[in-house]
Amino acid sequence: MSKKNRNYIQVSGGEVSIIPLGGLEQIGLNMTAFEYGNSIIVVDCGLAFPGEDMPGVDLVVPDVTYLEENFAKVRGIFITHGHEDHIGALPYVLQTLNVPLYATRLTMAIIEDKLEEHEMNGMVKKNVVRYGDVIQAGDFRVEFIRTNHSIADAAALAIFSGAGTIIHTGDFKVDYTPVSGDMIDLQRLAELGNEGVLALLSDSTNATKPGFTPSERRVIETFEHTFSEYRTNRILVATFASNVDRVQQIVNTAVRMGRKVAIEGLSMVKVVNLAKELGYLEIPDDVLVDIESIRDYPDEKLVILMTGSQGEAMAALSRIANGQHRRIQITPNDVVIFSSTPIPGNEKAVSKLTNEIYKQGATIVDQATHVSGHACQEELKLIYALTKPKYAVPVHGEYRHRKENALIAQGMRVEKDHIFLLNSGDVLRMNAQKAEVTGFVTHGGVMVDGLGVGDVGSIVLRDRQNLSKDGIIVIAFALEHGTGKLLSGPEIISRGFVYVRESENLMDEARQIVMDAVTRSTEGRGTIEWSRIKNEVRDSLGSFFWRQMKRNPVILPIILEA
Amino acid sequence: MSKKNRNYIQVSGGEVSIIPLGGLEQIGLNMTAFEYGNSIIVVDCGLAFPGEDMPGVDLVVPDVTYLEENFAKVRGIFITHGHEDHIGALPYVLQTLNVPLYATRLTMAIIEDKLEEHEMNGMVKKNVVRYGDVIQAGDFRVEFIRTNHSIADAAALAIFSGAGTIIHTGDFKVDYTPVSGDMIDLQRLAELGNEGVLALLSDSTNATKPGFTPSERRVIETFEHTFSEYRTNRILVATFASNVDRVQQIVNTAVRMGRKVAIEGLSMVKVVNLAKELGYLEIPDDVLVDIESIRDYPDEKLVILMTGSQGEAMAALSRIANGQHRRIQITPNDVVIFSSTPIPGNEKAVSKLTNEIYKQGATIVDQATHVSGHACQEELKLIYALTKPKYAVPVHGEYRHRKENALIAQGMRVEKDHIFLLNSGDVLRMNAQKAEVTGFVTHGGVMVDGLGVGDVGSIVLRDRQNLSKDGIIVIAFALEHGTGKLLSGPEIISRGFVYVRESENLMDEARQIVMDAVTRSTEGRGTIEWSRIKNEVRDSLGSFFWRQMKRNPVILPIILEA
Repeated sequence: MSKKNRNYIQVSGGEVSIIPLGGLEQIGLNMTAFEYGNSIIVVDCGLAFPGEDMPGVDLVVPDVTYLEENFAKVRGIFITHGHEDHIGALPYVLQTLNVPLYATRLTMAIIEDKLEEHEMNGMVKKNVVRYGDVIQAGDFRVEFIRTNHSIADAAALAIFSGAGTIIHTGDFKVDYTPVSGDMIDLQRLAELGNEGVLALLSDSTNATKPGFTPSERRVIETFEHTFSEYRTNRILVATFASNVDRVQQIVNTAVRMGRKVAIEGLSMVKVVNLAKELGYLEIPDDVLVDIESIRDYPDEKLVILMTGSQGEAMAALSRIANGQHRRIQITPNDVVIFSSTPIPGNEKAVSKLTNEIYKQGATIVDQATHVSGHACQEELKLIYALTKPKYAVPVHGEYRHRKENALIAQGMRVEKDHIFLLNSGDVLRMNAQKAEVTGFVTHGGVMVDGLGVGDVGSIVLRDRQNLSKDGIIVIAFALEHGTGKLLSGPEIISRGFVYVRESENLMDEARQIVMDAVTRSTEGRGTIEWSRIKNEVRDSLGSFFWRQMKRNPVILPIILEA
Repeated sequence: MSKKNRNYIQVSGGEVSIIPLGGLEQIGLNMTAFEYGNSIIVVDCGLAFPGEDMPGVDLVVPDVTYLEENFAKVRGIFITHGHEDHIGALPYVLQTLNVPLYATRLTMAIIEDKLEEHEMNGMVKKNVVRYGDVIQAGDFRVEFIRTNHSIADAAALAIFSGAGTIIHTGDFKVDYTPVSGDMIDLQRLAELGNEGVLALLSDSTNATKPGFTPSERRVIETFEHTFSEYRTNRILVATFASNVDRVQQIVNTAVRMGRKVAIEGLSMVKVVNLAKELGYLEIPDDVLVDIESIRDYPDEKLVILMTGSQGEAMAALSRIANGQHRRIQITPNDVVIFSSTPIPGNEKAVSKLTNEIYKQGATIVDQATHVSGHACQEELKLIYALTKPKYAVPVHGEYRHRKENALIAQGMRVEKDHIFLLNSGDVLRMNAQKAEVTGFVTHGGVMVDGLGVGDVGSIVLRDRQNLSKDGIIVIAFALEHGTGKLLSGPEIISRGFVYVRESENLMDEARQIVMDAVTRSTEGRGTIEWSRIKNEVRDSLGSFFWRQMKRNPVILPIILEA
């Protein structure tokens, strides 16, 4: 079918807008709004973990100011799959934006668990969707399409509007032989392609990688090999809790090799129970043993499955390796399988963890399977070939990944000026005639620290960074009301600056400098200006410490009037 | 030659000790002491860069307490090559331990440059050594042996003592076709092996990697390929400043392709000038152009060589990519070659940098040459085969690397209990009859912050970490002498905690809590105990903020008496 003959179904006119609210600059913060007429729908609601430049911040959630301002239009949040970077911000976002949720069964179960933790499960309108279901949401209709990913029940979304059909792939790969469930619904994507697809938003994570991502099923060979090689050892496997298919294959291998399986780590236990309950994971009852009773089984009869393959400090494997675990200690007869590649940024933590394990004499098997949950170049081409979109909008990836996805789109005959590398906040307005960025809305990340959402801003962050570099020096003194005469102090106290016992002379000098500064800024003046005194103290102490030590502590003068 | 026939030359008796003073737990801090009779010699004097858990720290140098305590015995510091992790701590260590230095020509030139920066070049006794030279240093004799590495003039050391000969490889690879200079002196190593080697300390960096490290010369093929592919583009190459051979190959390619070469980045300019001056680098005069005049040359006639391939924030490439460079801007006609693999821990910074460059439309060539400066497994085997050591002491690497090196030693017939995976500070005492760890000395890292060396300790670091997490709250108030009556305040000031305008109510409540705490801890008591008041304020405010916000700021009460 040539381009000219393509028939954009249901086109009743108007324009549809694609508005990424996060996730393009800050990986993890996946959230995209679609707007048509009087309706907005939202796809995904992920969280990001703070960078090194955000000390003290627990997590980052998308800024939904635009959605709050247009609350009456928002028809629902559609979730593609149950990973943190797609669902993690829901408990925060739903507090001000309580709209209906739509997700497949496992995805919704994971969301419910999360909402339960925040004690808000009861207040949310949840709709469990099956593949093929079409939801009417205002002026949109949304269809869930089966895909494959490193978690079960993943979906792509076909978003039908009067201006045309948009497909959002979610995170996906093409797995012809998935461990559980069926393969991605290529037929439906082809059908939509024939009917006419206005725009394709596709996963760019692996766009720089040539070829095809191998099937998850391939991993079992590696497990069988390792289990056979280490028949007399205890085997510990660390992987992502959410990768239920990987867990299934480990269990299958254990069963075949006559080993029992114990599960450790909060999120692992949670996901395994949930997946078992819903039928996504099959573990024979006599295979699963309680972690409390692992001492009853000899090493060669045991596999312990756990979290922590990314070197996360609080996860099971790190606690075990550091000797902080109540029930499990590493022994020289242990074989530890790392069943995941380090996520960029985690390399150092993983390396530290493996050194700890090595020191205790255990063997490490680095299972570099390269079985990812994301499509490589040939798979992306396939999706472009099937859907034949008029416009391409690479999503989910750093700029270089999205750029590479754009080049693939170009290779697949999407016209160069029909490909959009958006920034978060961009409003990309389109119909079959034309597409362009026509506006810009509030977007980005909101920092969560403890119970505070959004009260940590750039000033607070900058202060934290400065405090962490050279510490703080507080100078307190009392001045007589009216005269400015020094009544008490100055008291000088430091934190994070220098160890006090070694710096007594330094602090004596500093005290003298403060007194001189106070005298200079009060003597012979009619009025006492506190800000002048504070500045004088700050400047003279600042240059003193820089001269003496080449350090720049935060200097905080406090004046009491008595 | 069978083991029994081996003849440990010059063995006059006694025992020699190997004492790693750093570098085993903290990568970078390379320094090993050797002690025999009344003599100590030191090999290398490196610095480490601070980890994420050391905010504000500029660098880390080895703790030389043991050497200071035995100053009269210390005969000299022998440097294997001119990389920061082997020479960087010299300006700090020489201040208290001014002993003679021994190094080859280029190495010493780099050291002199560094000492000049610290204005202490004149006060140090420097001895330039040629390969084959044997230096008498107290009861030791030390011979410099040619090796190959990613910097010219690298040496292994043969350390002769009455208890036998120890070989320290330094950082090395076996390059049969080095770009400049000759290949590693395998003959001399073989000769020493025949004479009898007591112990081998060898580089473990690549011990987990099978095969041979390719010759540095291989890199030129990649450059020629890239230069040919991008004939009309401007080419920017980022690499390590110290890799003079790599620089030479880039220059050679540029000459062949008719391009001029400009150099950018402080350390790159410095090393290139130094290497040119000493004859380690040949650049025809008409090829080198000043960075100020690059605008005079068309893109296709220019290569700009610079630092910053590791994403270092202050290096040339980062400043260029961020638009902070005065003379160079990235354009879509630029091809940026990254000629180095990211060092573990730098992946994220490199990834951020490449995204910045991509956004400006330039092409990136990731030159994954895998040409390292360190020996892989087959090379390590070769050195074991030639030197046939009685004892093996893997050095230079994380535990897992040294462990792998130990397994290689075992495979090469070093007896299992003759292989020592030491900890820093261990005193490994040995002679031909026996070797064991007999003691433990002060060791480890000393933190340098500004002009302060060693005044930042664990308490200061912990304070900085706490400050960076949730900031600080300072409460100052004045009490009447004797009565404890509140005369002024409390003033409450926060930094890095919460943005003040949004928290006025919170601070009002906090003020009331402080006043209550003061009242509780003074009222009806005969004596005023300041520590009791401070504790009461700290505890009640601490639990208030935790309850309200789930945050734990540092709380600092200051009492003035007036």
